[in-house]
Amino acid sequence: MGEAYQALNEQTAVNYARRLEGVFPEEAVLENREIGDGNLNLVFHIVDPASGRSVIIKQALPYARVVGESWPLTLDRARIEGEALQLYNQWAPGLVPKVFASDREQALTVMEDLSDHIILRKGMIGRTRYPRLAEDMAAFLARTLFFSSEYALTPAEKKARVRQFINPEMCDITEKLVFTDPYYDAETNSFNPLIREEVESIWKNEGLKREVAQLKEAFMARAQALLHGDLHTGSIMVTAESTKVIDPEFAFYGPMGFDVGALWANFFLSYVSQEGHPGDAEEIRSYREWIRDTAEAMWTGFESRFRALWQEHVTDPMWTAPGFLDDVIHQVLQDAAGFAGCKMMRRVIGLAPVADLESLEDASERAKAEKLALEVGKALVLRRRNLHSAEDVLRLVCSIASKQEVQA
Amino acid sequence: MGEAYQALNEQTAVNYARRLEGVFPEEAVLENREIGDGNLNLVFHIVDPASGRSVIIKQALPYARVVGESWPLTLDRARIEGEALQLYNQWAPGLVPKVFASDREQALTVMEDLSDHIILRKGMIGRTRYPRLAEDMAAFLARTLFFSSEYALTPAEKKARVRQFINPEMCDITEKLVFTDPYYDAETNSFNPLIREEVESIWKNEGLKREVAQLKEAFMARAQALLHGDLHTGSIMVTAESTKVIDPEFAFYGPMGFDVGALWANFFLSYVSQEGHPGDAEEIRSYREWIRDTAEAMWTGFESRFRALWQEHVTDPMWTAPGFLDDVIHQVLQDAAGFAGCKMMRRVIGLAPVADLESLEDASERAKAEKLALEVGKALVLRRRNLHSAEDVLRLVCSIASKQEVQA
Repeated sequence: MGEAYQALNEQTAVNYARRLEGVFPEEAVLENREIGDGNLNLVFHIVDPASGRSVIIKQALPYARVVGESWPLTLDRARIEGEALQLYNQWAPGLVPKVFASDREQALTVMEDLSDHIILRKGMIGRTRYPRLAEDMAAFLARTLFFSSEYALTPAEKKARVRQFINPEMCDITEKLVFTDPYYDAETNSFNPLIREEVESIWKNEGLKREVAQLKEAFMARAQALLHGDLHTGSIMVTAESTKVIDPEFAFYGPMGFDVGALWANFFLSYVSQEGHPGDAEEIRSYREWIRDTAEAMWTGFESRFRALWQEHVTDPMWTAPGFLDDVIHQVLQDAAGFAGCKMMRRVIGLAPVADLESLEDASERAKAEKLALEVGKALVLRRRNLHSAEDVLRLVCSIASKQEVQA
Repeated sequence: MGEAYQALNEQTAVNYARRLEGVFPEEAVLENREIGDGNLNLVFHIVDPASGRSVIIKQALPYARVVGESWPLTLDRARIEGEALQLYNQWAPGLVPKVFASDREQALTVMEDLSDHIILRKGMIGRTRYPRLAEDMAAFLARTLFFSSEYALTPAEKKARVRQFINPEMCDITEKLVFTDPYYDAETNSFNPLIREEVESIWKNEGLKREVAQLKEAFMARAQALLHGDLHTGSIMVTAESTKVIDPEFAFYGPMGFDVGALWANFFLSYVSQEGHPGDAEEIRSYREWIRDTAEAMWTGFESRFRALWQEHVTDPMWTAPGFLDDVIHQVLQDAAGFAGCKMMRRVIGLAPVADLESLEDASERAKAEKLALEVGKALVLRRRNLHSAEDVLRLVCSIASKQEVQA
């Protein structure tokens, strides 16, 4: 539409929606509510009660909303998000919201309304089981990582995509908050005073920092596939029958294991926090079992789909060398374990906490879960080279969780 | 100058040179000779005999000169070359030609005349020793790889450089001619009929292809530092007192080990071809010793300089974790060995031969050297994970060379 960027309000968002072609009937009386609970964006839910039609308008703000205008943040992330969603709609249709319009100038995307879905993290805190989740996320990961990679694109196409998704400001957030600040006494950190001893022991753990440095380097330099870049359980919306991945504003070309690991980390954070949430022992045991099974099934589904896509599409004489696909998958697994470990530790020590832990009101209950998260995170980073299957990963995670319970 | 691209000829090149500010006296009578012996570019040597001043104008052609207009090739490589040379002049002054002007429209760079230097490959075929070479190349590698990396630049600067040097067409040449075609019966291949058996055994060697696939993936996806990208002994000009790296038109962000490996490969190709060139046993033995010592000293000089730059400049709390620098260097070494292996094999099997071998007129003498090159190349790829020092690398190379001589 070509006008200079202006943050929308409830009225101008309605005006904007009304101008969209083919979305609402001409005389519709639109209702609008700003529902953004994130830190960086405005999110308008615009409904025409008469026709039942509705859309979401998501607009980036030029600063981090939670801090205010003192933390400027690139509007280019709205372009990245819109372009990533459009590619996801090609590669993994049905697993992301449909995009109706993108407006680079206004840094916004108009997309499918998912009000009938809920955020997966909330669902999991309420111990809901999602029967489609493992398969859907396996398909999302396999398809988006495969189709954006060297193995599916021509070398020139892949390099053009790398260029398209260079995303310095959003990557900088991850580089700092996931891969740097939690490992020393940084100002951004914020943690439960009851676990200070454990946190300080991480700051002194030189072997751990050396391994995290390797993972950080891989995150920064290995342009393997288009990552979502922030694939935690708050970036997934679900119903019993549907799974939608949202918010790829951190998208960039990085190592495939990072998206898999992000998902795992958030499953494992839910796992370690189960004891702190209300419920009898059987309820806890059985939901943990569901988490474990789902985390494992996500990997096995990912692997089998990725292998099938490879068989179907890869023809390069080098990529088809016997054993090379096994090498690729093996590296994704070990990377995923390491990245999962980093993502767990940062949620305990760093700037951005996670509701699975934060919602534990009793500080000592919370400390118990947080210590577990740190132990699991450390082990995933330090022992990732000994992990050769999702079963190995899950066995490690669950055995640490059980051992600690006995000590406690 | 803003005019549409036009390939220069000897007359228009002189006119162009005359318009350059501050290069030649106003009334100078310029002499000009086209001296390009490469495949892709025009190179004009323009001299003012009166003042003794001279420059080189290098202009990219929009096709591969050797094949003709049927093989189009991007002019953007001239921008890449000019910009890389300018950065090299900052990072490694004295080790590259000075740049007097760059003209993006005309796809040319005006640079220092190095007519008093000769191409290192020619010097080495003549068994000349260059006392400064190891130290100069060690400095070039350490400084250009370090200062372009994540470890020296801010994350945003590094990502901007990655974008600046995305170089799909030139990378495509390497991806095909170094990492793909030599490993199957590709049309581009061209080799001595006397070694067909050895070449076919490489085409059937699935374990080798799997390892080469890993190296190809690293070349394509690991954006670690700004590489020269074509650092063979034909891209280095020397005198006894001076070393200049030229022709970075293949520059892009890739794994550091690739530049080190390219240099090693060309030293090892010289090593294995020594017996075929005239000279008595002592002459051969002693020049091989010089090659070995120089190849090893290049690495040790590189490593010590890289470590010193790191100590001086790196402050990131993760990169400074004890042991991480060792990991970085260890990986560069093993990558370099693997890439050297690929680069040796491709010079024997692939499209672009190398004068060290081609100048052996007797086909069976040449076959002996070519078989050695293939054996050394294979071993470097397959055993690179067992190599932990330059000494290990050189011991492997030299022991294979000696064993084969006994068999022959």
